[in-house]
Amino acid sequence: MTDLWLIGIGTGHPGHVTLEGMAALRQAACVLIPRKGEGKEDLAHLRHDILREAAAEARVIEFDMPVRDGSLPYAERVAAWHDAIARRWQAALSEAPAGPVALLVWGDPGLYDSTLRIAARLAPAPAVRVIPGITALQALTAAHAIPFNTVNGTVTVTTGRRLREGGWPEGSETVVVMLDGECSFQHLPPEALHIWWGAFLGMPGQTLDSGPLAEATPRIIATRAEARARHGWLMDTYLLRRG
Amino acid sequence: MTDLWLIGIGTGHPGHVTLEGMAALRQAACVLIPRKGEGKEDLAHLRHDILREAAAEARVIEFDMPVRDGSLPYAERVAAWHDAIARRWQAALSEAPAGPVALLVWGDPGLYDSTLRIAARLAPAPAVRVIPGITALQALTAAHAIPFNTVNGTVTVTTGRRLREGGWPEGSETVVVMLDGECSFQHLPPEALHIWWGAFLGMPGQTLDSGPLAEATPRIIATRAEARARHGWLMDTYLLRRG
Ligand SMILES: C[S@@+](CC[C@H](N)C(=O)[O-])C[C@H]1O[C@@H](n2cnc3c(N)ncnc32)[C@H](O)[C@@H]1O
Ligand SMILES: C[S@@+](CC[C@H](N)C(=O)[O-])C[C@H]1O[C@@H](n2cnc3c(N)ncnc32)[C@H](O)[C@@H]1O
Repeated sequence: MTDLWLIGIGTGHPGHVTLEGMAALRQAACVLIPRKGEGKEDLAHLRHDILREAAAEARVIEFDMPVRDGSLPYAERVAAWHDAIARRWQAALSEAPAGPVALLVWGDPGLYDSTLRIAARLAPAPAVRVIPGITALQALTAAHAIPFNTVNGTVTVTTGRRLREGGWPEGSETVVVMLDGECSFQHLPPEALHIWWGAFLGMPGQTLDSGPLAEATPRIIATRAEARARHGWLMDTYLLRRG
Repeated sequence: MTDLWLIGIGTGHPGHVTLEGMAALRQAACVLIPRKGEGKEDLAHLRHDILREAAAEARVIEFDMPVRDGSLPYAERVAAWHDAIARRWQAALSEAPAGPVALLVWGDPGLYDSTLRIAARLAPAPAVRVIPGITALQALTAAHAIPFNTVNGTVTVTTGRRLREGGWPEGSETVVVMLDGECSFQHLPPEALHIWWGAFLGMPGQTLDSGPLAEATPRIIATRAEARARHGWLMDTYLLRRG
């Protein structure tokens, strides 16, 4: 049975890696690295920097990420893509030396990430070990030096799409949003809402903004468009709070 | 202006500390450490172990945590307690050498933690830097090797009290609960719910259980009571999922 270690590496800051993650990299026999990250060349560099910092002697096996089949409906497209990634892993594993195989996962391996679901497709099933990592949500609240929750409060963690479809979740003082390509906060009634927004968190291009939602919305939409144009891509997340 | 660094240390596993946290400990001029953690002797040891591991040369200033005034109503009691802690910090800071002052915060400094609110009481206001840390929620999902969310799903992060008062939050597939001394999951209609539970996550006494809620509830209640009796105290958290 293959030991498959999913190592959370944080969200772009090489210092996000934990001591447990570094030790695992030193113990791994082999590390699988997608040749082009999530399609962003510079994110692949971060993985190599982390391996160097760990002085890892693991064999590095690079693999190409498959391309998504745009002709399929959404759910099938995702499933087919995960199947295709699992086949690439399987092929890479067949070349791997004996011993634990590591994968470096952006942020925490549990948060809006498909790595665990892809691992579940491997046959024979590997023994999966998850090493937690700093998430984009924590990078956001740390950068703004704000609490995640109000005192004894409830927080909803959701996606841009779900926020657009469902509106403000009843019973939560705080909402944090990931995977939002459309500034979905602009569709909420802005009264009494405050936003803390961050892009490229932990990375050299880190950009922050915050304020009452009504005032911050046009500013963030403009900053976001400008940053995306300059970098060619963008990762951002935000926290909304009532009152 | 004092530089006050709040360093998330994770939830009991010394390997949870990040490289950024270790570097900050080495750069700090001084570290404030509560003499008895949160009333649990062994948690103070962890902080000293981490300082040793970092080879930190910072001066260590220990302080006693104040006692909560049980005669006050809840909100006032918490406010008075935070005021009292801020006064202890202020006294400790007056002895501190020049340079950054570090505090080691359990888990992530932003998640159900009062450190940021206590820091806001200091006068003159310090320049606060937050270094994110692994939370109990991540330690839980990592230990069970499960995703935090369903695909594109919504997660509610809440407390035992709020779960008892509000029931299952409409619109969430997943609920994670902290600060629950009363096994509040036992009051939910258990049909179609699955629970993943963990106590002393990342620590030598780590205990896990999971299963359909109806079957797991009596088991977890018994395990929890037994573990609490054996250790004298207990920290636990859990994730509930529909379907
Ligand atoms: C596929 S999810 C992966 C999340 C990751 N597993 C984590 O723990 O943060 C990608 C989303 O995370 C957020 N994100 C990840 N890294 C980020 C960063 N450095 N700055 C801002 N947002 C980030 C964005 O909302 C992005 O759409
Ligand atoms: C005051 S909150 C602090 C949370 C912390 N800041 C974090 O990021 O995890 C304490 C609650 O966190 C959870 N917790 C903290 N450490 C834990 C551990 N090692 N195992 C299980 N639960 C833990 C429990 O639900 C406990 O009631």
